[in-house]
Amino acid sequence: MKAEIVSIGTELLFGEIDDTNATYISRQLTSIGIDVNLRHAVDDELAHIVQVLGTAMRRSDVVITCGGLGPTPDDLTRQAITQVTNRALQTVPAAEQQLRDFFAKRHRKISSTNLKQCQVPRGGQLLDNPVGTAPGLLVEHEGCVLIAVPGPPPEMRLMMTKHVIPYLRKRLQEQGEMPLFTRTLRTADIGEADLAEQLKDILANQSDPALALYASPGEVRIRMHTKAPSQQEANKKLGDLENSIRQQIGEHVYGTDDETMEVAVGKVLTAAGATVVVAESCTGGLIASRITDVPGSSRYFRGGYVTYSNELKQQLLGVPAQILQQHGAVSEECARAMAEGARESSGADYALAVTGIAGPTGGTAQKPVGRVYIAVADEQGTICQQFDWPGTRSQFKHRTSQMALNMLRKRVLGLV
Amino acid sequence: MKAEIVSIGTELLFGEIDDTNATYISRQLTSIGIDVNLRHAVDDELAHIVQVLGTAMRRSDVVITCGGLGPTPDDLTRQAITQVTNRALQTVPAAEQQLRDFFAKRHRKISSTNLKQCQVPRGGQLLDNPVGTAPGLLVEHEGCVLIAVPGPPPEMRLMMTKHVIPYLRKRLQEQGEMPLFTRTLRTADIGEADLAEQLKDILANQSDPALALYASPGEVRIRMHTKAPSQQEANKKLGDLENSIRQQIGEHVYGTDDETMEVAVGKVLTAAGATVVVAESCTGGLIASRITDVPGSSRYFRGGYVTYSNELKQQLLGVPAQILQQHGAVSEECARAMAEGARESSGADYALAVTGIAGPTGGTAQKPVGRVYIAVADEQGTICQQFDWPGTRSQFKHRTSQMALNMLRKRVLGLV
Repeated sequence: MKAEIVSIGTELLFGEIDDTNATYISRQLTSIGIDVNLRHAVDDELAHIVQVLGTAMRRSDVVITCGGLGPTPDDLTRQAITQVTNRALQTVPAAEQQLRDFFAKRHRKISSTNLKQCQVPRGGQLLDNPVGTAPGLLVEHEGCVLIAVPGPPPEMRLMMTKHVIPYLRKRLQEQGEMPLFTRTLRTADIGEADLAEQLKDILANQSDPALALYASPGEVRIRMHTKAPSQQEANKKLGDLENSIRQQIGEHVYGTDDETMEVAVGKVLTAAGATVVVAESCTGGLIASRITDVPGSSRYFRGGYVTYSNELKQQLLGVPAQILQQHGAVSEECARAMAEGARESSGADYALAVTGIAGPTGGTAQKPVGRVYIAVADEQGTICQQFDWPGTRSQFKHRTSQMALNMLRKRVLGLV
Repeated sequence: MKAEIVSIGTELLFGEIDDTNATYISRQLTSIGIDVNLRHAVDDELAHIVQVLGTAMRRSDVVITCGGLGPTPDDLTRQAITQVTNRALQTVPAAEQQLRDFFAKRHRKISSTNLKQCQVPRGGQLLDNPVGTAPGLLVEHEGCVLIAVPGPPPEMRLMMTKHVIPYLRKRLQEQGEMPLFTRTLRTADIGEADLAEQLKDILANQSDPALALYASPGEVRIRMHTKAPSQQEANKKLGDLENSIRQQIGEHVYGTDDETMEVAVGKVLTAAGATVVVAESCTGGLIASRITDVPGSSRYFRGGYVTYSNELKQQLLGVPAQILQQHGAVSEECARAMAEGARESSGADYALAVTGIAGPTGGTAQKPVGRVYIAVADEQGTICQQFDWPGTRSQFKHRTSQMALNMLRKRVLGLV
């Protein structure tokens, strides 16, 4: 089954916002085995929307539009669908009642433009939107399913998982198509080229499951996918391939699928029944913020010290003045002292400390921009590693946080 | 002048990565007054690329492709352009020499697939790529300029600013088109609907400069744009409109154009010669991380306390046990005590403190998920505000950090 996605909104074409909705919808469709061959973004011009929709519907089995369902005059998706399908708009009474209740509860007056949100091209259906006012639309037309979802990401996501994906999964089954199963292994501390080199035999000989590497800053994902009649058969194929890969590069795999590094760290800390504290200089709180992105992190995260100034390094972490004078704040000695001081003053089992030069200025010949020291202290002692990253200030912060969390993870697991 | 952008790469259609390149190119073209009406993403299938390119070139004056210029077999952009323009490929000797030198310097063997990067459709030209091996391509064909830039973002960005934008700006001038000038006012602590209501007379009557509102979590941007023969005339028109807008809602404007809230905060602190410290509970370090995203923030940022546990709130910030027992960690009393304790122990001029319930669990009937208290302490005393945010954990963290930074900014300016 082939799909196209049409994102609607002039702000996209101005480059005012990233089209993350298109990414999300692509990923959702791909995950159930629908091929997304083409995606479009089009501005709020009725003629443009109609043209793109018409072509897409002739070419593909499924067309999903995102955005332009609101009540304002530049929300033209409903009108465009009416025009492309050449069907009259009809009001859905139940939806109208729901919208009237929504406004009445908030003591707001409902307008005729609001009410047009309850209309659907003849033969189509509305998709319930529990977190916003704009329902979605679904209409089958000349062999193509056209689905319109709203643009605000929380509304779009809920509608995709609640209505669109179940509907399409059922349609795939009815057509006898085998579902797609994917598995992703997430690696850190190895580059894409090294990974490709170490996996070259597997990469060369693999066609089912298919295998691909995707690099992003601080991580490379190994994505496997296969079509199979059942989850069980898919698991067998994906599991065999995963085992071969792990035999080659298993030490670098920190998680699977949607598991982020901070989630992986939370898991190993929870399993060990251990707590952590962080002491950050150059990352400025990013490591603590990532750890606390995980719901329930208060169970293992004691807290953090963002010691940007030398005074706070001394005052809060007890870094000796002599280390700062002799080696400087960006030094292995300082990183170790920060980790040990944070662990001692907080009583946590593990302490993670980073100090470095995020740039763009502040580097010297001996300690260039991009230099960072990462230390982990626990009851067995303290380990420390030096890194030199290329890239911008924000890349530096992200890479450092990723590598630091991975060092902590490996330390808790006894791998380093 | 009308443009279309074609992003090429199967990983986009899988939803493995956001197409931030398309956003960047859209913004660059828009900034010089080129209308981007349509954007496409297409997988690494020659037939698909050829079809999309052909349609785009018939419809638009400029078509920019991004990606698919590398040496591997799935890099098909060059081949697609050759097919669409029906021109033979020719090798550019200077480019070949440069590439041979590049490989020789690195003691790597050059292959015939590498050499195809030095080929260009007859009549076209290569665009130099100083940070990668894949040069860009530019070919004029039947009234349309087709430009191909590589996919890695740093290479794409450099090629856009160095070659593509100057080329297109010159072309616009030759065609007698007036350049576009934009100005954006960034607001916080007011919603899109309220802003639209307060600006309704201006919004209704404005056509040149054109005016639009864009909402994203925690902020609404007011974007103005106009075409004018000179910067001076544009400044006059944009300045007049900006003044009218500021008269209505000036108190909510925190910055202009690319100025983020953390940059705005840095400016007011620098101007005041003041320092700040932060004490975070529910935001877990995000506020400190945002402040330190700004180069040079060490001049005014003393550091931060991420006091996730009650123990650390007492130990580091001196929050009285009685407050925690009587009012709880999520309370106005605790937020005030955190701010005052952080200010005192660090010696900073301002202290910003937040405590709340990020969710998804941990709420009660009296203190639901989304509740947060934000306090700012300075020598004049302490102010505190309560908020209740809807949304996810990450939206909660972002909104709270945005509102907290804005409260700090207003306090430093004497507005609250």
